[in-house]
Amino acid sequence: MSLDTADGPTARLCAFIAELDFEQIPPRVVHFAKGLMIDWLGSALAGKGAHQVEMIDGFARAMGPADGPSIIIPTRRRTSPYFAAMVNAAASHVVEQDDVHNGSVFHPAAVIFPAVLAVAEAEKKTRREMLTACIAGYEVGIRVGEFLGRSHYEIFHTTGTAGAVAAAAAVGKLIGLDAAGLSHALGSAGTQAAGLWEFLRDAADSKQLHTARAAANGLFAAFLARDGFKGAAKILEGKKGMAAGMSSDADPARLTDGLGNRWVTEETSFKWHASCRHTHPAADALQLLMRREGLGPDDIADAVAHVHQGAIDVLGAVDVPQTVHQAKFSMGTVLGLIAVHDIADLDAFERHALTDTRVARFRAKVRMELDAEVDTLYPKQWVGKISVTAVDGRKLDARVDEPKGDPGNTLAKQELEAKAIRLAEFRGGATVDEMRRCIARIWKLDQPGRAVDLFAEP
Amino acid sequence: MSLDTADGPTARLCAFIAELDFEQIPPRVVHFAKGLMIDWLGSALAGKGAHQVEMIDGFARAMGPADGPSIIIPTRRRTSPYFAAMVNAAASHVVEQDDVHNGSVFHPAAVIFPAVLAVAEAEKKTRREMLTACIAGYEVGIRVGEFLGRSHYEIFHTTGTAGAVAAAAAVGKLIGLDAAGLSHALGSAGTQAAGLWEFLRDAADSKQLHTARAAANGLFAAFLARDGFKGAAKILEGKKGMAAGMSSDADPARLTDGLGNRWVTEETSFKWHASCRHTHPAADALQLLMRREGLGPDDIADAVAHVHQGAIDVLGAVDVPQTVHQAKFSMGTVLGLIAVHDIADLDAFERHALTDTRVARFRAKVRMELDAEVDTLYPKQWVGKISVTAVDGRKLDARVDEPKGDPGNTLAKQELEAKAIRLAEFRGGATVDEMRRCIARIWKLDQPGRAVDLFAEP
Repeated sequence: MSLDTADGPTARLCAFIAELDFEQIPPRVVHFAKGLMIDWLGSALAGKGAHQVEMIDGFARAMGPADGPSIIIPTRRRTSPYFAAMVNAAASHVVEQDDVHNGSVFHPAAVIFPAVLAVAEAEKKTRREMLTACIAGYEVGIRVGEFLGRSHYEIFHTTGTAGAVAAAAAVGKLIGLDAAGLSHALGSAGTQAAGLWEFLRDAADSKQLHTARAAANGLFAAFLARDGFKGAAKILEGKKGMAAGMSSDADPARLTDGLGNRWVTEETSFKWHASCRHTHPAADALQLLMRREGLGPDDIADAVAHVHQGAIDVLGAVDVPQTVHQAKFSMGTVLGLIAVHDIADLDAFERHALTDTRVARFRAKVRMELDAEVDTLYPKQWVGKISVTAVDGRKLDARVDEPKGDPGNTLAKQELEAKAIRLAEFRGGATVDEMRRCIARIWKLDQPGRAVDLFAEP
Repeated sequence: MSLDTADGPTARLCAFIAELDFEQIPPRVVHFAKGLMIDWLGSALAGKGAHQVEMIDGFARAMGPADGPSIIIPTRRRTSPYFAAMVNAAASHVVEQDDVHNGSVFHPAAVIFPAVLAVAEAEKKTRREMLTACIAGYEVGIRVGEFLGRSHYEIFHTTGTAGAVAAAAAVGKLIGLDAAGLSHALGSAGTQAAGLWEFLRDAADSKQLHTARAAANGLFAAFLARDGFKGAAKILEGKKGMAAGMSSDADPARLTDGLGNRWVTEETSFKWHASCRHTHPAADALQLLMRREGLGPDDIADAVAHVHQGAIDVLGAVDVPQTVHQAKFSMGTVLGLIAVHDIADLDAFERHALTDTRVARFRAKVRMELDAEVDTLYPKQWVGKISVTAVDGRKLDARVDEPKGDPGNTLAKQELEAKAIRLAEFRGGATVDEMRRCIARIWKLDQPGRAVDLFAEP
């Protein structure tokens, strides 16, 4: 890196990652990261058999090597790290149950773990190197998402864009790049960063393509950097960089906010409902209200979800969903599932979201309204507010300050494991026994020694 | 495609490409396209041994199959179409001699021919199918570049962004997608579209990464569409599509302008000087002036290139170039080569751009000024205007309305072939005999029968 570009937030971020040592990461953050990985593994397994994953895997079969060191999780086939990362990242985001960081509206697990796992297997890294690399990816990607801001997320799928940078940082750390090398990796990743929300209105398959490409492109960028391939030093904050092209409210201070003190990894939320995160606060608020008041779905005449603008932007496009995936972006459907079935997990979506007339009837009673307070607090805080008119004429309200799964309302170890096991079983991705073995191995990732095959027989 | 999205310019573009038949393409356009392919092949061969190409090829070796149906042009190694397209596209853009379309500031050859050639070999397509697919890529990609407009090009490398869409259209046509399939292909390509100019200030290697990714991502998108993978129907003009995210002056009418009557393929310019296209008009004007006035470099006290804003945006970052590649983006260096050596071809750059003190001396006399007329005509017309103060105090001007290589000032068949042969020889990419065989085969691509291996022994 030349001297005149060795300053600035991207450079400082790269220096932090280069120097990041497992020993200096607080144990509670390490522990939290293992939980994130368990949660992710469930999501990756739940993507088994999804047509998007099958098609991307088909491309990997046609264009990639027939064997290799890295596992494709849902099928256990092995191939090169590039294609393993690509297919696993596609699988991780299918069921909308992977983690999310509120402030950045970024889904880190779906892009970071696939890239790191694929390379750790190929390059025989240690368990601690693996964990450190994953945390590096979270610390970078979340800050990049926060930096790009709300204007970015209005049009761009941050998990595709910030995700490529996160994967590059994680793989770059894993393969031992120094600060200059990481700068090149981030430069090459940022200039490949892409992903547009346009697909939502058509129920198209792009979301899986975005995670697939982010993981694969980030990995590509890091490997190129190891060979000396140069990237832009200020790809994030430069005059013709990511923010210049794709954001109007980017704040460079966010790129380095609290580096080494504020561990954004542990700010990540687990997703409890199997729907788009933007529906969760209102779903929790409705559930609270109905339980508190003892109401059933037919006791409610109408329901208003008071939401932030981002929710309207992302969810507004879907009126009556045509696919289960689209249903996860339909506020009315999610609230209908909560109202009728008191649950909006994967099974509920599969069985009731499209065909249950009671859910459809409730959906027609729901509307969203922009709420100034919710909008101001977002994305730092995802407040759920609901107003209901009961059929008896009563006006009722409920509020949830932190949706279930958020850092202040996080999942217990048992909830987290049970969710991952349910996801693994959902499409036969893994048996309960297999999953228990994987979970036990992940809890031991802070111990010394080489990373082991998660799915190896005992 | 559902009915409510079956209109709009992207849909019309897809319908046009789906129905495009070789027989309906005017023979002069077919002939022109063959010239473009010859010109491209020279550029792809001239990329041999460049470190960016070697590194991307190294990744292809590590991550891709060791053999396959598709040729990597500079080395003649064979691999899967995906990696062949990727490496060849990287190679095509290295020496800055590949073609350009003025109105779109898009380099079509570098992304379209690599993708089409790789797939034509793998899927045993006919020569006419190949040519038709290439023309489809030009007709789509150029219009997408024009649509995205000047605001896009200020930050984004259009060859990376529009290039992914162009490659998807070309490969989609080649593999026989119908209009709906092409719509999905374009949707998946557009949501992967990326490439930022930030790398220029650091002399980073991203330009080759952009072409590599555009070709590979477009091919990926088309193959996914063949399997039924859905893309956004309005990825170009939709509210959360490419223009919404990456342009402030997009004009949807340009996407379908003159479809079937105006063949934008034949509006493409061949690059004569081995430098960034933004330097060519001024270089031609300076050459005209010095020849007309009989001036040598030491007769000139200062020179002002009157340019469009895009030239200042792209070239302004480079003051004193540190690499040959950067020198191609230095207006002062390009004018210095013309002034001192009367030529700015590949050899001149290699031998004189960085080390010739006379060139450096002339460079210090050059500055750029924004010119209202030039800026208004750009990008439809690239006018060259130069003002010189001679050491004897005279003020001299020259003007070139169409730089050499432009459609109205295009290369003769002999010039075109000679340029391609020089490029092939530049790094030993092919011998003169090999190149003559390739050229002969390309001139026959309008004939019936299966596409043949360009490099096969006679």
